[in-house]
Amino acid sequence: MINAGIIGATGYAGEQLVWILNNHKDVNIVYLTAHNYAGMSFDDVYSNFRGFINQKCIDLKEATERLDEVDVLFVALHQGGAFEIAKEAMKKGIKIIDLGPDFRIKDVNCYEEWYKIDHNAAELLDEAVYGLVELNREDIKGKALIANPGCYPTATALGLAPLVKNGLVELKSIIVDAKSGISGAGRGANIQNLYCESSESFKAYGVTTHRHTPEIEQQLSALAGDEVIISFTPHLVPMARGILSTCYAQLKKDMTTEEILDFYKEFYKDEKFVRVIDGFPETKWVKGSNLCDIGVRVDKRTNRVIVMSAIDNLIKGAAGQAVQNMNLIFGLEETEGLNFMPMFP
Amino acid sequence: MINAGIIGATGYAGEQLVWILNNHKDVNIVYLTAHNYAGMSFDDVYSNFRGFINQKCIDLKEATERLDEVDVLFVALHQGGAFEIAKEAMKKGIKIIDLGPDFRIKDVNCYEEWYKIDHNAAELLDEAVYGLVELNREDIKGKALIANPGCYPTATALGLAPLVKNGLVELKSIIVDAKSGISGAGRGANIQNLYCESSESFKAYGVTTHRHTPEIEQQLSALAGDEVIISFTPHLVPMARGILSTCYAQLKKDMTTEEILDFYKEFYKDEKFVRVIDGFPETKWVKGSNLCDIGVRVDKRTNRVIVMSAIDNLIKGAAGQAVQNMNLIFGLEETEGLNFMPMFP
Amino acid sequence: MINAGIIGATGYAGEQLVWILNNHKDVNIVYLTAHNYAGMSFDDVYSNFRGFINQKCIDLKEATERLDEVDVLFVALHQGGAFEIAKEAMKKGIKIIDLGPDFRIKDVNCYEEWYKIDHNAAELLDEAVYGLVELNREDIKGKALIANPGCYPTATALGLAPLVKNGLVELKSIIVDAKSGISGAGRGANIQNLYCESSESFKAYGVTTHRHTPEIEQQLSALAGDEVIISFTPHLVPMARGILSTCYAQLKKDMTTEEILDFYKEFYKDEKFVRVIDGFPETKWVKGSNLCDIGVRVDKRTNRVIVMSAIDNLIKGAAGQAVQNMNLIFGLEETEGLNFMPMFP
Amino acid sequence: MINAGIIGATGYAGEQLVWILNNHKDVNIVYLTAHNYAGMSFDDVYSNFRGFINQKCIDLKEATERLDEVDVLFVALHQGGAFEIAKEAMKKGIKIIDLGPDFRIKDVNCYEEWYKIDHNAAELLDEAVYGLVELNREDIKGKALIANPGCYPTATALGLAPLVKNGLVELKSIIVDAKSGISGAGRGANIQNLYCESSESFKAYGVTTHRHTPEIEQQLSALAGDEVIISFTPHLVPMARGILSTCYAQLKKDMTTEEILDFYKEFYKDEKFVRVIDGFPETKWVKGSNLCDIGVRVDKRTNRVIVMSAIDNLIKGAAGQAVQNMNLIFGLEETEGLNFMPMFP
Repeated sequence: MINAGIIGATGYAGEQLVWILNNHKDVNIVYLTAHNYAGMSFDDVYSNFRGFINQKCIDLKEATERLDEVDVLFVALHQGGAFEIAKEAMKKGIKIIDLGPDFRIKDVNCYEEWYKIDHNAAELLDEAVYGLVELNREDIKGKALIANPGCYPTATALGLAPLVKNGLVELKSIIVDAKSGISGAGRGANIQNLYCESSESFKAYGVTTHRHTPEIEQQLSALAGDEVIISFTPHLVPMARGILSTCYAQLKKDMTTEEILDFYKEFYKDEKFVRVIDGFPETKWVKGSNLCDIGVRVDKRTNRVIVMSAIDNLIKGAAGQAVQNMNLIFGLEETEGLNFMPMFP
Repeated sequence: MINAGIIGATGYAGEQLVWILNNHKDVNIVYLTAHNYAGMSFDDVYSNFRGFINQKCIDLKEATERLDEVDVLFVALHQGGAFEIAKEAMKKGIKIIDLGPDFRIKDVNCYEEWYKIDHNAAELLDEAVYGLVELNREDIKGKALIANPGCYPTATALGLAPLVKNGLVELKSIIVDAKSGISGAGRGANIQNLYCESSESFKAYGVTTHRHTPEIEQQLSALAGDEVIISFTPHLVPMARGILSTCYAQLKKDMTTEEILDFYKEFYKDEKFVRVIDGFPETKWVKGSNLCDIGVRVDKRTNRVIVMSAIDNLIKGAAGQAVQNMNLIFGLEETEGLNFMPMFP
Repeated sequence: MINAGIIGATGYAGEQLVWILNNHKDVNIVYLTAHNYAGMSFDDVYSNFRGFINQKCIDLKEATERLDEVDVLFVALHQGGAFEIAKEAMKKGIKIIDLGPDFRIKDVNCYEEWYKIDHNAAELLDEAVYGLVELNREDIKGKALIANPGCYPTATALGLAPLVKNGLVELKSIIVDAKSGISGAGRGANIQNLYCESSESFKAYGVTTHRHTPEIEQQLSALAGDEVIISFTPHLVPMARGILSTCYAQLKKDMTTEEILDFYKEFYKDEKFVRVIDGFPETKWVKGSNLCDIGVRVDKRTNRVIVMSAIDNLIKGAAGQAVQNMNLIFGLEETEGLNFMPMFP
Repeated sequence: MINAGIIGATGYAGEQLVWILNNHKDVNIVYLTAHNYAGMSFDDVYSNFRGFINQKCIDLKEATERLDEVDVLFVALHQGGAFEIAKEAMKKGIKIIDLGPDFRIKDVNCYEEWYKIDHNAAELLDEAVYGLVELNREDIKGKALIANPGCYPTATALGLAPLVKNGLVELKSIIVDAKSGISGAGRGANIQNLYCESSESFKAYGVTTHRHTPEIEQQLSALAGDEVIISFTPHLVPMARGILSTCYAQLKKDMTTEEILDFYKEFYKDEKFVRVIDGFPETKWVKGSNLCDIGVRVDKRTNRVIVMSAIDNLIKGAAGQAVQNMNLIFGLEETEGLNFMPMFP
């Protein structure tokens, strides 16, 4: 059994982690931390867990003192939250899977510019690996510090990888227009995320300034072997879960939709969590699963390719991918605990 | 392995059956029927199943001819839909679990009065058992024909059973005000269930005429050992899944909320799928599970007891309960394939 | 022109008041107050008002100092919020329309018991009138202090008045099962009202303890000329606006649905804002209007009558009714500024 | 008084027309037609109209025979629906405002290619004018046949016009990623638009093939004085009303967000229905109004400009704009009957 600690268990990503790990046959959840709910039973915070988990949430300090009890630590905090605990855990040889952004960006300056804080654990960046399994699988195996990708970068990089890695598109032409459900904004008590403020409406936010921009660019640049600069525009959809990323790029040569589709199907043919489809992805068909659905179309009139990729932001875009990474670094079957079907309706 | 056939697999209840059975370690789905989608691959009807199930749907005629291939038949059709197939299956010794209403009402006249059709399989009614497991468990074991309860009756009978069975309330005083998500209306292409017509609105329907009324009364009467006549008012909630049943009854003697709660906790103490809670049930905490959450309050000012029970109408109110029945009649662990947690958010 | 001040303009009821009054041909909005947004332009708080209203919100202190500028003061604050400003305004002969609860309950002890605060303006209670126009019209005319009814009491009292006033039902038998959209919970930043927490779910709340209970009872008792004690259970519907109140009562003698319907149509035949309908009310058909739709059914099997009434909680249940009261006390046409149609879809 | 006939009054755009015209002080609605509801009272189809309009819907044949009774005919039908009635009406000198696509595309071949039907009234195309008032106002005045713009083209052309008309962007670089509420799909009883199928999900549709593509291109080309070919991707948002169009284009020279914003504010400074805002548009702030909110950002890293424009698809994108056109051609104040504020929440 793998003994796991979860730091930040009462955010939505944390809660999904508990949900997945509680059914994972090789994992034992040792403790859960919560900033605002320390001392409360987890199933009093999330009553869906009544009868399943009634551990009391502890605070970060106690979790740090009890590091020896765990084999792996999942950290689901905001920027800056993972620095100290990661240092402590690494010293003790404990695996870290960070669902926050602290170890995703390799360039410290870039991190500090976009996240507006100092990076206090830069010495660990070399040991960190970007945990987008389908694209970095071999690099991840054997690593101790996993930077679990952001939700938008997961959908977007999976959508664009086949094109970018194979030089099929103009790197300067990439535009990513992405849309997320409201759980992506977290569980904070903000007026703008109230039902009455966010239902029955649609908006863009963070236009030209969203922090997932350099993360997407870093990953695409690595695939392309060349610098990629994109335009990235996130939007908020009145639904709880799901991301659809609509990506545009100029083809370098004429290709048909069928050719590109075949190419994608070949690219992902061994992947259990990627489904290349002939039609258009809908977030409902991946909701509650670790899947990514991808569809493509060539716009012959402009010679652009349009790629649409759909994930559940809380699973493939957060907790599910974290468990996928854990499976990988502990030598388990990659799908272990993750082969549940999307739930509909 | 139990070989199962599903008749009516492409309605919402049918789809949930496939979803559950596909993960049930003791079940093999032999065939799926669909009236409108015969010949289509199941995952073309419900794309969440892509990569999991790509069986072609067959029609009812073929299913009838291939009855010998199955051990159990789930029937998820409208009233009248189960008569013929049930007769055929019973002749061959195949277990039937009918998710429709055809074998729920013991009194043929009552059935015909409320459902407005002739009952063409009345000879089977004696062999049928009402499959509300928590209340009829011993009767169900060993039976071949299970009338799987309706969604409202499940929530309501579980909510009221402790009171009614123990003579704590005036039987003539019971009022049931129930609320259901829109999936309860099925997958038919009706204007009134369009997003634009049913979102952001709330209404009652079928007031004094809903067909679940005699079913609830039959079950409560059996528990009480006396005739129970109720007022039942269903409402439609702008959400996909979930039922909350709010029940009112006059207490025969003074009791406190605490006394009633204790009584409920004792009544359901061995049940895996019923959670008696101190607070008020919310459908979100049972969504995607086979659970029923129950809360109670005594209104001291009127000496009424108010019982609230919440289920997922498609699982505990349909497909999950059907599988629970199957587990029971095949001698499996009752929770087999059903111990998944509610999904939130 | 009537010069109006609005205290608490940035809550949802306040915002709707501004929305209505801004189009009212006889009203000039002199000032708006906001606790949290003082100093901000109103259209920065609610951007739908861009291009229509860019007054800066002021604080309560300034509003109090500038009382002489207004003819009428609308107060849309929580309990206790209206005591001081009402005293000041009454001294100066300014009309007060209080959308909060402070002057609704005639019995000070009852107010203090349910609202858990001292009533610091009890001397004004005699001068206050309960502003449910359809039921108290003549009492309201000429009054200076209007207690604008709560949202649930408005829907419920309009629904039950014909029965209660004419002695058609057993007074001890009344049960009110009411359902409200989430705007009823206000604009506070509470986790439970976040989109992800309140969408796709349904629950009861405040069971046996909701503060609208004594208000409904007071109004029904006044109509009946006898004490009425009810059971009242509010629920939260995943929609922004709307209330449906489903009321149950035992008929004293046999009556048919048609008889009751005719009786209701006669009772409300001169009312511009009440529509008695043959079918079942749906909140969508009154959304964005000052209307109340009422439907009834007799349950012959139990001799109960079931009354359903639907309003827009923010308009007929708050701001619209407040303007209706203003029209009445200023001698304007009662429908002035209020005859807009419901908006659908 | 202007006597108006409405052809296709029971679709969502038609219903909104009735809603607006019923409050328009200079308009008398002479008749309403409905294909599926002929003979039914309009308020039985849309119960929000109870007490406001109880005219019986007539059929198209009767409307054609009674053309002499009207001064203006609004046609809200699918492609091909306006050909015959427009010919009849034009002969009689009756003004036509067609909310469908039949007279929007000047090039018959282009129309026939995208709409897959023959154009049977090509002789009228020269007399038709594209009714996007803010951009074609002078051309519209005095015209008899108005092609009321599509919903996506309205939002998109208003958003891009200042850039395109002034040669600020590369014409080949324009990408339009648009998102619409579900009312845009009409009131047809399609499974995909059921609540359970379209809520809590997001998808693209009609990628590279949507019929609004040539309409947008025609309008942008006219503004640019040069051919514009775009990529256009529409998406479906789980909300009833609203469109947000996110547009991307390469700037020809370096400009800042502030410069572009100033330029937009100047461009639209006399427009009553366009609000250029410093922040990001949200559809909720224009819901229920004839407004268009526009925001812009320059992405300095790529030298792209991103324009976001929000409208209510049923009002500015359909019925409201139709009335705006009517006001214009009848010499009324352009805002007459249209200066209602957005409704929130």
